[in-house]
Amino acid sequence: MRIDLNSDLGEAYGAWSMGDDSAMLDVVSSANIACGAHAGDPEVMFTTLQTAAANGVAIGAHPGYADREGFGRRVIPMSPAQAARMMVAQIGALQALAALAGARVCYVKPHGALANLAAAEPELARTLARAVRDLDPSLAVLAISGTALDQAARAEGIETYSEIFADRAYLPDGQLMPRARSEAVLHDADAVVKRLIDWLDDGTMPAGDGGRVRLAGQSICVHGDTPGAVDMARHIRSRLTDAGVTIAPFLSS
Amino acid sequence: MRIDLNSDLGEAYGAWSMGDDSAMLDVVSSANIACGAHAGDPEVMFTTLQTAAANGVAIGAHPGYADREGFGRRVIPMSPAQAARMMVAQIGALQALAALAGARVCYVKPHGALANLAAAEPELARTLARAVRDLDPSLAVLAISGTALDQAARAEGIETYSEIFADRAYLPDGQLMPRARSEAVLHDADAVVKRLIDWLDDGTMPAGDGGRVRLAGQSICVHGDTPGAVDMARHIRSRLTDAGVTIAPFLSS
Amino acid sequence: MRIDLNSDLGEAYGAWSMGDDSAMLDVVSSANIACGAHAGDPEVMFTTLQTAAANGVAIGAHPGYADREGFGRRVIPMSPAQAARMMVAQIGALQALAALAGARVCYVKPHGALANLAAAEPELARTLARAVRDLDPSLAVLAISGTALDQAARAEGIETYSEIFADRAYLPDGQLMPRARSEAVLHDADAVVKRLIDWLDDGTMPAGDGGRVRLAGQSICVHGDTPGAVDMARHIRSRLTDAGVTIAPFLSS
Amino acid sequence: MRIDLNSDLGEAYGAWSMGDDSAMLDVVSSANIACGAHAGDPEVMFTTLQTAAANGVAIGAHPGYADREGFGRRVIPMSPAQAARMMVAQIGALQALAALAGARVCYVKPHGALANLAAAEPELARTLARAVRDLDPSLAVLAISGTALDQAARAEGIETYSEIFADRAYLPDGQLMPRARSEAVLHDADAVVKRLIDWLDDGTMPAGDGGRVRLAGQSICVHGDTPGAVDMARHIRSRLTDAGVTIAPFLSS
Repeated sequence: MRIDLNSDLGEAYGAWSMGDDSAMLDVVSSANIACGAHAGDPEVMFTTLQTAAANGVAIGAHPGYADREGFGRRVIPMSPAQAARMMVAQIGALQALAALAGARVCYVKPHGALANLAAAEPELARTLARAVRDLDPSLAVLAISGTALDQAARAEGIETYSEIFADRAYLPDGQLMPRARSEAVLHDADAVVKRLIDWLDDGTMPAGDGGRVRLAGQSICVHGDTPGAVDMARHIRSRLTDAGVTIAPFLSS
Repeated sequence: MRIDLNSDLGEAYGAWSMGDDSAMLDVVSSANIACGAHAGDPEVMFTTLQTAAANGVAIGAHPGYADREGFGRRVIPMSPAQAARMMVAQIGALQALAALAGARVCYVKPHGALANLAAAEPELARTLARAVRDLDPSLAVLAISGTALDQAARAEGIETYSEIFADRAYLPDGQLMPRARSEAVLHDADAVVKRLIDWLDDGTMPAGDGGRVRLAGQSICVHGDTPGAVDMARHIRSRLTDAGVTIAPFLSS
Repeated sequence: MRIDLNSDLGEAYGAWSMGDDSAMLDVVSSANIACGAHAGDPEVMFTTLQTAAANGVAIGAHPGYADREGFGRRVIPMSPAQAARMMVAQIGALQALAALAGARVCYVKPHGALANLAAAEPELARTLARAVRDLDPSLAVLAISGTALDQAARAEGIETYSEIFADRAYLPDGQLMPRARSEAVLHDADAVVKRLIDWLDDGTMPAGDGGRVRLAGQSICVHGDTPGAVDMARHIRSRLTDAGVTIAPFLSS
Repeated sequence: MRIDLNSDLGEAYGAWSMGDDSAMLDVVSSANIACGAHAGDPEVMFTTLQTAAANGVAIGAHPGYADREGFGRRVIPMSPAQAARMMVAQIGALQALAALAGARVCYVKPHGALANLAAAEPELARTLARAVRDLDPSLAVLAISGTALDQAARAEGIETYSEIFADRAYLPDGQLMPRARSEAVLHDADAVVKRLIDWLDDGTMPAGDGGRVRLAGQSICVHGDTPGAVDMARHIRSRLTDAGVTIAPFLSS
């Protein structure tokens, strides 16, 4: 068995840090790197690219709304075409710094509010997917299975991969349980690992109603920026490895 | 005879315009396009790239200090390596938008305070030149002949071109006359054209002391953002064409 | 008869200009000055404050969403309390620069998307009105009569003034005609002046249906940033003055 | 005996935190609060103001170069008058938010590169001091004794206070030992406390040459943003209190 672990990294900015990238880059096999708009700057991008490349971690662009104060978590009103151009400029900046760092950007995973909107709105999803393909047909897309972005990327002929979330509860229809519900986020590392191993076995996860839901995915998203996140991620990697699972990128750089 | 006319374009930002890009893109053969840091944003960059491509105008990246409030005209203290990463991220953003616009970035010409510093400081010049080459060996550099950047770019094996300024007076050593001197900027269109035609004939321009100075160059820089700039640029193009000079990019896209 | 003319000014930013503030400050009696967030910066704010004070023009703060790229014309998602703090920080910055310029900020008129939202949403309007009062009880509010902001400001005991628009057509209910309709914006200076003089006479304006609508107002808003704007504003001032109308601030600094 | 403890706080930005302000506001008696330019935003400013006021902590404005990416640690080229306007806009923003938070800004302490330059350059110091006085004559200045800013503030008739640094070694002339020297920063909490108690006794501190240097000061600056900073600050407060020293603002709000 073989699976990818991905995390959102490179989210520092100037003197401000965010999470422990250096530790996480020893744990994950794919890094979604912020592109200097909602987070990151050329220095942070370059350092994260270099470390990822040195560790054999696959590199994804993690573009978001150019809204530092909101960390890309607010929808900034714009047309799909404008969003696509904003996204493409960010991916290009990361690709250029990757060239300098001897690394290569393999895939794109939108961030925050842009990801949420692209998961829900087919026109935005289609416009972003086409822009990724027009920018560089060798880029893959990492999305949540069944979302508008996932469908649009596949329809455009883009190599498309799916992720599940290590510590988020699911609803019977495969959607994430809203964070407002108390059981939406799992904090027990053993419970998290157990359901991941079950999922790797049979492709299903517990659903909020007591049943199970089938989830497609080539990657598990682990968080790097909350208290205890690094420990949780390390625990997941170590226990999966113990269980005979190979942690490796869904794509190679 | 054949010469390139270049101008700094794409310097609008959001609701703010700067010069008349649409008019200038009918006059010049090469456009130095701001990369969204000192000026420009993804919308402005995309539109300028599209129009340049449609008009057969060669496209250069025009990166500068990421200092909107100072329009890239202030030196922001940073190491040469930091400056290179800042520059490369900007070029990458423009390259990516060019892919979306069906255009191609052919060369790099640093802007403002970054250009001035790179003209004077060999270590910065060398670091920037290497970064351009590492980013994309097919990129050329447009600089002023004899500056540190010009020398560094040639030393790194980069295809390097030089520009002269249509409306700036020169000193006997080939440096620009400082703007503080009253005759530093020429305003008479006929005088400007006359000295350009003489320069195209024998490679020399009038120097401040009454003599002449030899200036290498494959391109003439014309301004687009001052009152009367478009008229001056049109006049130069029209009179050079009348004199049998072909206006064409020093590089083709 | 006596009326105020107001305009949105100080909307330059760094090297980018917007409209002709210097000309407009000879025409208007009140200046709504951008506060360095959607437009303006300390230099622009200071210069505009100084010229306004020198010309006896009353000064209003013109705060907006801190979204330069969108020029404050996009709603940036945030709570009413966050919007109020964002607004208050901007007013404070202008008040401080006014102290340096020997001027005084007399009133507040929100800008763009913030103004539109505050006109429509009572909770936001109330939160903004309270914040203005808590910041400085001597500040007045300039709003459109009957909007949520107008009502909230009056309810909070704030001195509240209303404006009408010189060049915008009205609907029978007093709302502005949507810009999508061809007759929404008036371009004929004589027609504009005629309906202003009628309005000063009897308080009514032509409505879209051929009838007339009663509009309260102590100020007429004239634009400064569109082609021909300065000429239109000068024409309005000159013709109103000829008709015996005194142009004077609704408030004195 | 009585002394003030001050610290630079409110340096978070959006989703990025910096130090542990909540802990530090239980330790210090004066808070230098970032003004939304090099660090901070209206939310961070407001929360820090509220907590400071609730804890009886005196509030100072901590303005810096409007350079987030450089955290105010880089000199951004501008004239003294421009620097003063940039500073005044920031102080005004903080004053306005203080009004909303039921707090009051009592003093000004420039940050980072602006502080360093104002300590060294008399013209800048004089321009900043005059701007503080013109903005609000009730504002005090907190500076290092003997610097250009300290002298200029006194010359302008501003109430002026001085600070010493808890954990920095001094040279015989009262200057801070450059950070390049290994003993420039003290890490031993007991040694730090001992020399502070000696200084409170006789006004002198150990100098780099083995002798002692006389240092004027009404406040001790403690850091809040480095590892162990909160523990060091707590230790200093607790040991000074044990030694009978009262920790209280040099100014009351």
